[in-house]
Amino acid sequence: MKCKRCRKADAAVDLPSHNSAFCPGCFFLFFRRQVVEGIRTLSLLSPEDRVLVCVSGGKDSLVLWDVLMELGYRTEGLHIDLGIEGYSDRSREKVLAYAGARGKEPIVVDLRAEGIPIPEAAKRARKEECSVCGTVKRYFFNRIAARRGFTVVATGHNLDDESARLLGNLLHWDQDHLSRQHPLLPEMAEGLVRKVKPLWRVSELETAAYGFLSGIDYVTEECPMSLDATSLVYKEALSLIEEKMPGTRRHFYQGFLHQNRDVPGNSGAPGRRECGNHDEKNTGGEASPPRKCISCDAPTYTETCSYCRLKERVTKARERL
Amino acid sequence: MKCKRCRKADAAVDLPSHNSAFCPGCFFLFFRRQVVEGIRTLSLLSPEDRVLVCVSGGKDSLVLWDVLMELGYRTEGLHIDLGIEGYSDRSREKVLAYAGARGKEPIVVDLRAEGIPIPEAAKRARKEECSVCGTVKRYFFNRIAARRGFTVVATGHNLDDESARLLGNLLHWDQDHLSRQHPLLPEMAEGLVRKVKPLWRVSELETAAYGFLSGIDYVTEECPMSLDATSLVYKEALSLIEEKMPGTRRHFYQGFLHQNRDVPGNSGAPGRRECGNHDEKNTGGEASPPRKCISCDAPTYTETCSYCRLKERVTKARERL
Repeated sequence: MKCKRCRKADAAVDLPSHNSAFCPGCFFLFFRRQVVEGIRTLSLLSPEDRVLVCVSGGKDSLVLWDVLMELGYRTEGLHIDLGIEGYSDRSREKVLAYAGARGKEPIVVDLRAEGIPIPEAAKRARKEECSVCGTVKRYFFNRIAARRGFTVVATGHNLDDESARLLGNLLHWDQDHLSRQHPLLPEMAEGLVRKVKPLWRVSELETAAYGFLSGIDYVTEECPMSLDATSLVYKEALSLIEEKMPGTRRHFYQGFLHQNRDVPGNSGAPGRRECGNHDEKNTGGEASPPRKCISCDAPTYTETCSYCRLKERVTKARERL
Repeated sequence: MKCKRCRKADAAVDLPSHNSAFCPGCFFLFFRRQVVEGIRTLSLLSPEDRVLVCVSGGKDSLVLWDVLMELGYRTEGLHIDLGIEGYSDRSREKVLAYAGARGKEPIVVDLRAEGIPIPEAAKRARKEECSVCGTVKRYFFNRIAARRGFTVVATGHNLDDESARLLGNLLHWDQDHLSRQHPLLPEMAEGLVRKVKPLWRVSELETAAYGFLSGIDYVTEECPMSLDATSLVYKEALSLIEEKMPGTRRHFYQGFLHQNRDVPGNSGAPGRRECGNHDEKNTGGEASPPRKCISCDAPTYTETCSYCRLKERVTKARERL
């Protein structure tokens, strides 16, 4: 099959959801245009922004960093080493290798050095790993951005991530999460920086193809903590539908964004496990502005911020041993 | 494993979605209670009703008729012979056998005799079989009910049907269908009789178990016209989720009913194929009352009702041959 754009080279990437197929060159063009369009339509980024790109070492975040650099944005990478044996070491290596080859030195937060590696923290705090991970990541995203003068934090969530999350929220009629789900979360207060997901228009297959064709070396394994996360089940269900009806996933998520997002609902969601990586909330829509954490000065709606409370719980549990 | 209710007999039906397992006797009790509860909470039926039960010959509709008779409702069966070679003959036989054994004689509408068998009608009218089937069935449900003094039409749609339909409507943000989706569609005008789905709380697995344990002999094959209907894909996707997270399907649909059903949305649904059996709309929410079809007197919002228009199209196409 020939590329449907240039009609010259052989097609390398088949995209049934776009009823198209591209050669590598045309695919890069297509991919970048999708990202540009995603940024433009929702005003995610401006040329003046200083962008903190959160890079886990997986394909999505490295591809995001790659495209944003290509598009000329001022970016730096932030890698949070979660302290998961093996997996975290391999992830960190990939990030450092990618950045090094581009003359960049990523900011690295080492959760072992911070005394709060995810597996141990979850165990001590008796919480789900994904929930703990979400709390810790949000904290450092905001802290590093605020302290180092970044205007926005960008994460690599793609269309598959966002549509799976949307499906989960709808299955549980989780009004609270539905009202907050968006590729743009504006800055809510000083220290609660704007969060954006510039890859919201591109699928996992598309980021994988971009990563492969660009020769980006990334960690292919899933995070071992999230293997039974519900988000993977929703992804699988949507993949099944997408296979039979290409384009459904895209229409589903884009259709949602076209709504006013005020889907009515009783917030009847039981405490199911969600990968905290997909829960980038800023505030809960509270009316009053945040105050400062009495322990670390971070913006918070409670006396002590959730990170400091978690850390105290972990520390105390550790001391009891 | 012992029955979780009586704790004496062996469990015969395992229901993870209810975190339970029942012996046959307790399962019947459970099943009937679910139906009673479904009827009561939404005021679907009253003891005064004369209920026209639409029986296809499949498990759901025969189980519905069975339970409604057990519960003491005044029912008659209506079977529409769709004129699908083989399948329709086998379906009709099952209905007649079931009814005969209970001293009942179902009303039968033979679409071949009416000159509008589904396969030929769809071909001549150049429409999807499921869409044609939906139009024809709705027409006869209303006509037979109105002419024979039934106060309500009952169909065998179960929880799997309704949740799959809901998922499809949400994936396409089909506001029009979302606003009409409910186990109760009230009488909209004379001749547009009330429609109810008393099995909306029970799953396909549960109706199958009821059918099997009661010894009801039903057609097990799917309608050959609907084999590539999108509804089957949505069912499969929900089954995948249900298997990993039992109870999700039930919470999803019940959560929807608890909403005010005014899910905002652009009606951007493309003309996808849906089994018309699942599209029991009455009116479209038009403001003015219906008038009478100039051809057949049925209530309609256009000069000629959709059934008569379809029939004319089929007749003309046939004459052209």
